[in-house]
Amino acid sequence: MFPKNTWYVAATADELTDKPLARTLCNERMVFYRNAQGQVTALEDFCPHRGAPLSLGSIVDGNLVCGYHGLVMGEDGKTVSMPNQRVQSFPCIKRFAAQERYGFIWVWPGDAALADPALIHHLEWADNPQWAYGGGLYHIACDYRLMIDNLMDLTHETYVHASSIGQKEIDEAPVTTKVEGDSVVTSRFMQNVMAPPFWQAALRGNGLADNVPVDRWQICRFTPPSHVLIEVGVAHAGKGGYDAPAEHKAGSIVVDFITPETDTSIWYFWGMARHFNPGDSELTETIRMGQGKIFAEDLEMLEQQQRNLLAHPDRALLKLNIDAGGVQSRRILQRIIASEQPVAIIARSAS
Amino acid sequence: MFPKNTWYVAATADELTDKPLARTLCNERMVFYRNAQGQVTALEDFCPHRGAPLSLGSIVDGNLVCGYHGLVMGEDGKTVSMPNQRVQSFPCIKRFAAQERYGFIWVWPGDAALADPALIHHLEWADNPQWAYGGGLYHIACDYRLMIDNLMDLTHETYVHASSIGQKEIDEAPVTTKVEGDSVVTSRFMQNVMAPPFWQAALRGNGLADNVPVDRWQICRFTPPSHVLIEVGVAHAGKGGYDAPAEHKAGSIVVDFITPETDTSIWYFWGMARHFNPGDSELTETIRMGQGKIFAEDLEMLEQQQRNLLAHPDRALLKLNIDAGGVQSRRILQRIIASEQPVAIIARSAS
Amino acid sequence: MFPKNTWYVAATADELTDKPLARTLCNERMVFYRNAQGQVTALEDFCPHRGAPLSLGSIVDGNLVCGYHGLVMGEDGKTVSMPNQRVQSFPCIKRFAAQERYGFIWVWPGDAALADPALIHHLEWADNPQWAYGGGLYHIACDYRLMIDNLMDLTHETYVHASSIGQKEIDEAPVTTKVEGDSVVTSRFMQNVMAPPFWQAALRGNGLADNVPVDRWQICRFTPPSHVLIEVGVAHAGKGGYDAPAEHKAGSIVVDFITPETDTSIWYFWGMARHFNPGDSELTETIRMGQGKIFAEDLEMLEQQQRNLLAHPDRALLKLNIDAGGVQSRRILQRIIASEQPVAIIARSAS
Repeated sequence: MFPKNTWYVAATADELTDKPLARTLCNERMVFYRNAQGQVTALEDFCPHRGAPLSLGSIVDGNLVCGYHGLVMGEDGKTVSMPNQRVQSFPCIKRFAAQERYGFIWVWPGDAALADPALIHHLEWADNPQWAYGGGLYHIACDYRLMIDNLMDLTHETYVHASSIGQKEIDEAPVTTKVEGDSVVTSRFMQNVMAPPFWQAALRGNGLADNVPVDRWQICRFTPPSHVLIEVGVAHAGKGGYDAPAEHKAGSIVVDFITPETDTSIWYFWGMARHFNPGDSELTETIRMGQGKIFAEDLEMLEQQQRNLLAHPDRALLKLNIDAGGVQSRRILQRIIASEQPVAIIARSAS
Repeated sequence: MFPKNTWYVAATADELTDKPLARTLCNERMVFYRNAQGQVTALEDFCPHRGAPLSLGSIVDGNLVCGYHGLVMGEDGKTVSMPNQRVQSFPCIKRFAAQERYGFIWVWPGDAALADPALIHHLEWADNPQWAYGGGLYHIACDYRLMIDNLMDLTHETYVHASSIGQKEIDEAPVTTKVEGDSVVTSRFMQNVMAPPFWQAALRGNGLADNVPVDRWQICRFTPPSHVLIEVGVAHAGKGGYDAPAEHKAGSIVVDFITPETDTSIWYFWGMARHFNPGDSELTETIRMGQGKIFAEDLEMLEQQQRNLLAHPDRALLKLNIDAGGVQSRRILQRIIASEQPVAIIARSAS
Repeated sequence: MFPKNTWYVAATADELTDKPLARTLCNERMVFYRNAQGQVTALEDFCPHRGAPLSLGSIVDGNLVCGYHGLVMGEDGKTVSMPNQRVQSFPCIKRFAAQERYGFIWVWPGDAALADPALIHHLEWADNPQWAYGGGLYHIACDYRLMIDNLMDLTHETYVHASSIGQKEIDEAPVTTKVEGDSVVTSRFMQNVMAPPFWQAALRGNGLADNVPVDRWQICRFTPPSHVLIEVGVAHAGKGGYDAPAEHKAGSIVVDFITPETDTSIWYFWGMARHFNPGDSELTETIRMGQGKIFAEDLEMLEQQQRNLLAHPDRALLKLNIDAGGVQSRRILQRIIASEQPVAIIARSAS
């Protein structure tokens, strides 16, 4: 169960080449390509002629040409032409609203008529030269909500990522969870701790000493349908922590776009937007490699957790204070999903 | 759904060695071997003792010996003997009518009592020194009817096989479909076109110029249950086309025997019978390699089309004029399948 | 269907290292580890916090620490602690009775309160310097009863293991099956035969001539739930056979512990306990390698037999005299399984 009338990340912009891209999102097999104007287009990956996947075809003059018998599909889901055929009465295929923004391809799996580009999640760090971004994509066999839980409770860093970003103090620092409209914010501040290896490297990347105590912060923000953006960073201790001047700290935003593929699998777009030393592309790549390795440590855990939960569908899980971020996020999702259901008309017999 | 009281190709003759051959055909696990007289035998691959597959056993004096406990199975499905056992009361296993002819093993998956070897599809080019034959076998995860559709509508050559046998003129030439009893014939003739690469090579293989205009023909003939034999060729333009004298043309029959393995998978026996330069075995091999490469291009399309159709079982596909060959073939199949169903006796209560 | 209130072999002792061991047994995902005292512990592989598999965690001071959020699980299935949490009300997870004995880890998948270590199958050859043991573990996709059948009817050696331990005389020698309480014993004695290759090597391994006639014996003993221990050996002919003095024979016990993983897969612990030349560890390894190769010959047969039986669930198999060992063993298993079912209270309406 996932919201459908909302924007999801479907792909990174550089995945769209001169060939069509097939991707299943929210249980729909879609095909993505750029039209003649270079604008991203998303259609059902199903040729109305004989059901061949259009993604095996090619893009000619901005139209998708089926690779089986040459049907030319328009970006509106209506057949444009087919050799020696009149196509007016051909059935349409589903068109999905799609947009390119911030280096990502966004798709609206629900009713395209409702798709307002203004609703695409605003990313303050994208297209901003004071920030640098690097990221990647993982496919994981788990319900998208298990990944939201994961990211809204960073105590797991101590255990899953012990050698990189985990440290005992995460467990020990109190955590605060607030619901702000449809968003959930979970915050944790650690004072006067030693930075773990990943953050030592970040300090060095910003030309700062890495062997002195720091103040560390983690501010996780869930926004529907499944974005988790996490402000993270360290400042030399006593300089103001999260609010310290730029020259005393290294701060970033961990970027997590979690798009359901099926009910039990996701496309996980992860990355880091860095607010220091943005011109250093080598540093961007070093961080990207490091983050990719760290985030890969979650995969087996999430997939095996999913297997365990499927084997025990009736077992209630604990909802501790550390789980509040995930619990509140799921509550918001439930409300949105319910609001998308058709209204049932209840007939009552007169008494 | 497929006809059962009919002959299918089960294997090529050279697949039958001195070991039993296991093959699932029409949802039945069968085992094939040669008896003491060298005649092909087909049985259910199931030992009546403990259910072991007989195909893991060996052939001794023309009988199949189970590789588990030594039961000796006769070619009639009755147990011949078993060490230290009386076998008279052992249950029989199913025997399938099987024949070897034209270099193929043929099997009749239905009622063996109805299996008349005279009904095996006649192949005029087999055992005829004026023809040469080469072919191969592919396993494809699709309904056998998708492959019939594929072969009865060659406009797909322009798209799937663009670099070998496809050419724009296929799309543009009018196509004629005729039903002749239980056969369907779809024909297309192209006048004064340049031969595509595969046919240029064929012209050279017959000692003819490859850089002059040709007349090209494609005459696809479906015969139940699932044979598609296609007369194809090119003649130097203006020499009579299909009817041109042999010295001006290069003509062949594309051979397609499509045997259902399950409801959504097939054994696809493909090949080409060549009516020119038959003694050139190197040419046979060159053509076979080329055809194998071309026909492999259909695999992904067919398997993904099948996936799409399984995901949308209720969606109606288009039936255009180019699809007429497949549509008519399916109609004949439907009639045959219906005729094989047991007649339902409808009891009516007297009013 | 398998007995649950009984001891199964779960692992070999050397599989338990300093990391937790995940293994599914009798349809339960379990995790095994040693506690602070070095005693083997078996728990459900499911963290009560969020369902993560505990086997992905680590062992700290003899407790299992969940690798996701640091929950510390006690060996009784009760949570010991979790960073910053009160854990008294956390739900317990299932604990399985487990024991280490004879170089194996034993588990009781049913009610732990009933688990009496005294019921662990006694192995006279383990911990006895007059014997040497070597063995291995195979995973096989078949019902555990197919493997019991296999081992209680050694006529299959003639066919499956023709080149090592099989010989025609096995088929020909009469077989005797006796039920002794909950055990089944199937015996076969062959007089004055030539030893097959495996036994020739064993004779040489005991310093005996390998090219003279021998008396050979096979005494298979099934004990619930699924242990089959087989006394096997050869003695120089006329020296007393099974009862011959040690200097004239080479005798062993084939060890088979068959533990259901699921309804259609097993963990198969196989080995050989040798009652001659026990100090020769090179001989132990040679025999182990040879046995491993021989026993691997059964895998494909059993897995394909299983596939055949699943495809024909209603087909009755034969129960010949050679099958008596398996048939009687299944009868005992049926009785035990029935005795473990909850008693149904049958309500009758007064007439």
